[in-house]
Amino acid sequence: MRILTGLQPSGKLHVGNYFGAMEPAVKLQDEGEAFYFIANYHAMTSVRNPQDLRDYTRELAVDFLACGLDPERAVFFRQSDVPEVNELAWILSTVCPMSLLEKCHSYKDKTAKGISPNHGLFAYPVLMAADILLYDSNLVPVGKDQKQHLEVTRDLAGKINEAYGEGTLVVPEPMIRDESGVIPGLDGQKMSKSYNNTLPLFGDEKPSKKLIMRIKTDSTPVEDPKPVEGSLILPLFRLFADDAAYQDMIRSHEEGGCGYGDLKKRLAEAYWEYFEPMRQRRAELIDNIDHVDSVLAAGATRAREEATKVIDRVRKAVGLK
Amino acid sequence: MRILTGLQPSGKLHVGNYFGAMEPAVKLQDEGEAFYFIANYHAMTSVRNPQDLRDYTRELAVDFLACGLDPERAVFFRQSDVPEVNELAWILSTVCPMSLLEKCHSYKDKTAKGISPNHGLFAYPVLMAADILLYDSNLVPVGKDQKQHLEVTRDLAGKINEAYGEGTLVVPEPMIRDESGVIPGLDGQKMSKSYNNTLPLFGDEKPSKKLIMRIKTDSTPVEDPKPVEGSLILPLFRLFADDAAYQDMIRSHEEGGCGYGDLKKRLAEAYWEYFEPMRQRRAELIDNIDHVDSVLAAGATRAREEATKVIDRVRKAVGLK
Repeated sequence: MRILTGLQPSGKLHVGNYFGAMEPAVKLQDEGEAFYFIANYHAMTSVRNPQDLRDYTRELAVDFLACGLDPERAVFFRQSDVPEVNELAWILSTVCPMSLLEKCHSYKDKTAKGISPNHGLFAYPVLMAADILLYDSNLVPVGKDQKQHLEVTRDLAGKINEAYGEGTLVVPEPMIRDESGVIPGLDGQKMSKSYNNTLPLFGDEKPSKKLIMRIKTDSTPVEDPKPVEGSLILPLFRLFADDAAYQDMIRSHEEGGCGYGDLKKRLAEAYWEYFEPMRQRRAELIDNIDHVDSVLAAGATRAREEATKVIDRVRKAVGLK
Repeated sequence: MRILTGLQPSGKLHVGNYFGAMEPAVKLQDEGEAFYFIANYHAMTSVRNPQDLRDYTRELAVDFLACGLDPERAVFFRQSDVPEVNELAWILSTVCPMSLLEKCHSYKDKTAKGISPNHGLFAYPVLMAADILLYDSNLVPVGKDQKQHLEVTRDLAGKINEAYGEGTLVVPEPMIRDESGVIPGLDGQKMSKSYNNTLPLFGDEKPSKKLIMRIKTDSTPVEDPKPVEGSLILPLFRLFADDAAYQDMIRSHEEGGCGYGDLKKRLAEAYWEYFEPMRQRRAELIDNIDHVDSVLAAGATRAREEATKVIDRVRKAVGLK
């Protein structure tokens, strides 16, 4: 069973990305043959500076490895190292009704947010379908916001198989991520760059901790109990603490005698410690960036092997060969 | 100076294709470094049968060579032998405003004719731009109907250069084909498959000549003069005859004494003789189809050499490398 995950290199990662996407993605390497790619073609729809694109791509590679992606077990590569994906995207385009793309929310949402409506954004679901189908992926873990795009992928694979013969493409299954536990940001809303409420995954110590110290709290005096319901500290703390420490933190709220400043300090410590092993691993990787590059090169070779099989099969089926 | 021409393999060629597109295209090999490609990716938007696509592609190769394309001077290749074009198309998509594609006539025209509105048709001008820009083409001969697409190409090249640096892409110049002499069909309208008034370029002798014998004429008696104005025979005859023969044909109309049947027979003979050398060359090529394949293979190698230079330059500029 092949499981495919793509991540866009669009800037510094935050704690919400880690718990919402990277940690669950990394776990998948235990479940089957995991393929991970850095979606740098997709990122071009928003990142217009070439040096930024290069930096973000490499940083995401470093961060992903630091977070536990094991290149011995998983295939890890840059999207652009397998340019065949663009050929498959064209082939899919020829069977893709315009109506299928016109009803996609993500394009409407992005342009509504003021991103200029370019054809890359509009065609995004077709390239995403090619990303998935190029590797005969069986399972694709997606958040709810990507569920519609996976439906487009399944539709297009079905249309190709209908037009050119069953088995031309493997129709993937979605694996809808459980998002019951939304990762809270510093203001209690979902952690998201667009809400400006994020905590960096690998930031510098002082400014990162300072962000926590600035979390808004009420004016309950030090000696009084603090409300557990509505606390912005507790749900964040829960991410970084084991159960005993978490219960302890609840007690510190309920018993009183502990000021918000101290509670936040404890949160800041827990946050910092939690990512310490990854931070160390990350520093080692940065010191040994050639290793990162060679991991990506090996991943590209492996991914391209698979892609070549599929694109050859498709080219033959559609009459390009 | 590099001149690029693409032709879609979408079925049997007719006399209108020859005089309207192939003959002028073949002449360009005297004007500069001519690149010709068979647009089989584009044809996929309408040809859904893989064997048809393969057959049409090979037939177009044979016909083009039979019509005088000289592979010693020109570069002749299949579009799909240089799949890099799809990568460039994606890159162009990311700078392509949707409004630019939405205002293209050809998509509206095709869907108005009942062709199902697929994303391939919509994205056609982006792939066409990539076709042109991938080879640093300087000059692109186009008919009036393609003028708008060439404007899109120039726009996209300009946007890439603006975003990523001047010189990233070469901005091509259009060379608008003189269409004052529209090629008339069997009914006097422009010769076009959609009017069902075509004369095949390389058809079988009997049925092809029969098409000419069925040209509608009025009921002027044999001995009377035939109207020159509005004659369906004369403008076709002019394509195949030298000036002396053409003047002679006019006289035969004006003097009377020659029935429409005889006039049409003369037209049929002139038509058949005109293409005789190409027909012979074509038969030789069909007998030696390996030669055709090796011409295309050599063309692909040469085209890919150029494409690799350009795509490497672009990848570097945009930060994919």
